[in-house]
Amino acid sequence: MDIPNFDDVLAARERITPYIHRTPVLTSSYLNQLTGAELFFKCENLQKVGAFKARGACNAVFGLDDSIAANGVATHSSGNHAGALSYAAARRGISATVVMPHNAPAAKKAAVRSYGGQIVECEPTQASRETTLERVVSETGADAVHPYDDARVIAGQATCVLELHEDVAGLEAVVAPIGGGGLISGTCLTLSQLAPETRIYAAEPINADDAWQSLQKGEIVEKDGQHSIADGLKTNLKPRTWHFVRHYVSDILLASEDEILDAMYLTWERMKIIIEPSSAVALAVILKHRELFRDQRIGVVITGGNVDIKNCPGCDRGRPA
Amino acid sequence: MDIPNFDDVLAARERITPYIHRTPVLTSSYLNQLTGAELFFKCENLQKVGAFKARGACNAVFGLDDSIAANGVATHSSGNHAGALSYAAARRGISATVVMPHNAPAAKKAAVRSYGGQIVECEPTQASRETTLERVVSETGADAVHPYDDARVIAGQATCVLELHEDVAGLEAVVAPIGGGGLISGTCLTLSQLAPETRIYAAEPINADDAWQSLQKGEIVEKDGQHSIADGLKTNLKPRTWHFVRHYVSDILLASEDEILDAMYLTWERMKIIIEPSSAVALAVILKHRELFRDQRIGVVITGGNVDIKNCPGCDRGRPA
Repeated sequence: MDIPNFDDVLAARERITPYIHRTPVLTSSYLNQLTGAELFFKCENLQKVGAFKARGACNAVFGLDDSIAANGVATHSSGNHAGALSYAAARRGISATVVMPHNAPAAKKAAVRSYGGQIVECEPTQASRETTLERVVSETGADAVHPYDDARVIAGQATCVLELHEDVAGLEAVVAPIGGGGLISGTCLTLSQLAPETRIYAAEPINADDAWQSLQKGEIVEKDGQHSIADGLKTNLKPRTWHFVRHYVSDILLASEDEILDAMYLTWERMKIIIEPSSAVALAVILKHRELFRDQRIGVVITGGNVDIKNCPGCDRGRPA
Repeated sequence: MDIPNFDDVLAARERITPYIHRTPVLTSSYLNQLTGAELFFKCENLQKVGAFKARGACNAVFGLDDSIAANGVATHSSGNHAGALSYAAARRGISATVVMPHNAPAAKKAAVRSYGGQIVECEPTQASRETTLERVVSETGADAVHPYDDARVIAGQATCVLELHEDVAGLEAVVAPIGGGGLISGTCLTLSQLAPETRIYAAEPINADDAWQSLQKGEIVEKDGQHSIADGLKTNLKPRTWHFVRHYVSDILLASEDEILDAMYLTWERMKIIIEPSSAVALAVILKHRELFRDQRIGVVITGGNVDIKNCPGCDRGRPA
């Protein structure tokens, strides 16, 4: 199993810089007062394709030899990785095929198509995603870029907290959402090298707590058919991400669906940024476990902002005719 | 009439830096494609109090002698200046009294109170605002800080485009909303000094087109009772802002209520930032007059992000019980 190292992160940064934004780090006096901590929000909702996934996808796509790239790339994804891989492939001028659950949010399907990606639909289960992708790869010869169980992707995601570390000195902890674990693994990779004293917390929905259960049990727990409004966090850990989670993550903290929605709208209202439910899990667990973070400098990764604005999660809302 | 000069802008910048954010400049490939221009959005929705008004208010408040400051400050405002003056006064530890139309948005009233400001309600007319403020000032001895017809306020607002000019080279035009004209006047003040070749466009709702009418007629046209979803832009020009508008503004461009709302939601969805309707007028006029901006580098000032998220403008929307 190829585990990326810090040299891979530095190479990723150099490789992807032309294709991504260096996203801003925002602060909110209001949220600092509310939580009793000093929060630094790394805003990957303002990233290309509206999510940190642009980093890993660009690192994978732009690292391919020309002969391999010619067959295109393929993946399965619950959403943002799909848009990200389509974006990266389009920037390189190669094709991208995305296996996607038929019930994925319309905004994420539209994003894939808008970047020129081809969608192949599957059932919303881990098994269906994987077997469908295998078929696509065997038919096209495309290079499969797993959304997180891929050393190139993890090294790419690691550049996010690398920037945060450069922009904010002395972080005592970083909190980031966990789904399959790609972002958390990249966070571990960067911080274990540059700031091993910084604690790393993963934030997960109670309704999709497979990573939390894995940490309790000491081995990967697979759960299928998890339902959460944080639709990006329903996937399970894989060997590469489990490696980082079990070695470097201080704890996994859980939040309910209501807590996630409340944190999301609080962020919209007070920080004036659109974040998707999956992103809000980080603030939700900080609000729930204030004692862990009080009087400390805390990095918070806002992972993405892809929401159907006209049909926003957890609310009934429509534009007037 | 005291007209601020560029030295006042530099002094303002030094004075207010501890109390405001240097806001990021964001770009959107999607909006660049859509408009055919290269747009640089100066995001004052991410400013303290959620609006550029923090700049002018801080400059006025922190420029006061201690003996005058002791009596507090007062103003009338349709919204964001009210929150901004309350914020600035609280940071200095003095009182702020705000005369506000009784129909001002709940979020803006709540903001004033959350910063410790006192609200005195008036009718939603220019005359009622002004006479009520005169009464407050005579009763309290407070220093009146007009939301825009004030040299200190204009010099403060001028720091916004000063930062934009520093961050983005070679802007061919800047587009900013116009209400009473404080931001546009500051923009004129900065650019006439640093980049006189940069064209300045003001963006105004058709439903509150008093500045446009003023420019046509060659003198200030006052209109009372204007109604627009862009509630920050209903005020009329005053002598100091008219001075800058007539000397330095290339044109005033108009947008309808629907165009403003469409531009607002487009920004929410594609840029992942919450902007208020008054901010969206700038993008709305760029979309409407693409020929003026095609293939050019255009600065766009996003003026604020104070929206009632749970009762957002132009849509019916509620959280589930």
